[in-house]
Amino acid sequence: MASWDLYVVITTKLGGGRPTLELVRQALAGGATAIQLREKDMPAREMVELGREIRTLTRAAGAAFIVNDRLDVALAVDADGLHIGQEDLPAQVARKLLGPGKILGVSTGTVLEARQAVADGADYLGVGSIFATKSKGDAGEPIGLAGLKAIRAAVDVPIVAIGGIDAGNVAEVIAAGADGVAVVSAVIGAPDVAAAARELLSAVRRARR
Amino acid sequence: MASWDLYVVITTKLGGGRPTLELVRQALAGGATAIQLREKDMPAREMVELGREIRTLTRAAGAAFIVNDRLDVALAVDADGLHIGQEDLPAQVARKLLGPGKILGVSTGTVLEARQAVADGADYLGVGSIFATKSKGDAGEPIGLAGLKAIRAAVDVPIVAIGGIDAGNVAEVIAAGADGVAVVSAVIGAPDVAAAARELLSAVRRARR
Repeated sequence: MASWDLYVVITTKLGGGRPTLELVRQALAGGATAIQLREKDMPAREMVELGREIRTLTRAAGAAFIVNDRLDVALAVDADGLHIGQEDLPAQVARKLLGPGKILGVSTGTVLEARQAVADGADYLGVGSIFATKSKGDAGEPIGLAGLKAIRAAVDVPIVAIGGIDAGNVAEVIAAGADGVAVVSAVIGAPDVAAAARELLSAVRRARR
Repeated sequence: MASWDLYVVITTKLGGGRPTLELVRQALAGGATAIQLREKDMPAREMVELGREIRTLTRAAGAAFIVNDRLDVALAVDADGLHIGQEDLPAQVARKLLGPGKILGVSTGTVLEARQAVADGADYLGVGSIFATKSKGDAGEPIGLAGLKAIRAAVDVPIVAIGGIDAGNVAEVIAAGADGVAVVSAVIGAPDVAAAARELLSAVRRARR
């Protein structure tokens, strides 16, 4: 089973002009346990080419590889799974098309959405935004640690918390019931991507002791 | 087997503010034999909802329903097939993920691309742009009737010609070897969508006599 300790979302545009694969390599070097490729504006062919390289890198590192939104690309590159938001494919449809061998993750921000996603076949939930974030303009009002705790109490699947998480607040996020943390800018926007990943990962593991 | 006589591409933005399903209904009322949903900026969930409705309408009309780019959406709504361009999923990958029961169409503009698409498993080719067009900014230089004839001579699969085709030039396009014509603005940009479709369809059929 995948480890969600440190789930790094890769969006080329948010990487400060550095090549996508360099961001992935550095994140993995820093210990990322899962990599998500989230490219809303990239043509599918480019995503497939990139995804194949990320598949090789993540496999070598023993990290999970999840593709955002594009189920076809996830299948094409043999990713471990697909992550969808509330505007992407309906979770039930995605579950059926993915087949039982792939991981399905669903973004949820409320107890209702979380319960529905689990009923529809989600294997894990992305829960957030926990705090305010600049990475995703459409992320809505933060749900806070209280929102996270409410979802934690409502569902049994692993929860990856997302939104404004950094080394300074990761302990309280884990204490509130998250199984791991997903980050975008905190890692791929950092001057030293590997160091940022390393710091976050040790904060997650310290918080669990 | 699908008829490609009049293949209407539906892109909501190009429909003059009219609802997508109204464009589809009118195109079918005018005799469109195939409908393609091409929405590059629409979230997948919305595409699935729309696609399900178009599936119902096209089935009732006996028209083929093809989804552009999103193989996952094509499968989710049980479309008859998928149409891909040179920046979308690689044709070989799409062929494999679609399975043998679905139609695969590939946009090509050169003999080389056309031969490759057929080798990769394309069931039909979109060939163009034949003439200059305003519907698709990235369509490149027109290949003209000469380009169409060259591709016609090179491959055996059905050819749907696209790009700047209207009732005034459809006869020469069919004479050059196209099995049918694909149109965007000439139908969905027309004040009377059904009438525009009807006029084009009869021009195609007249040209074949």
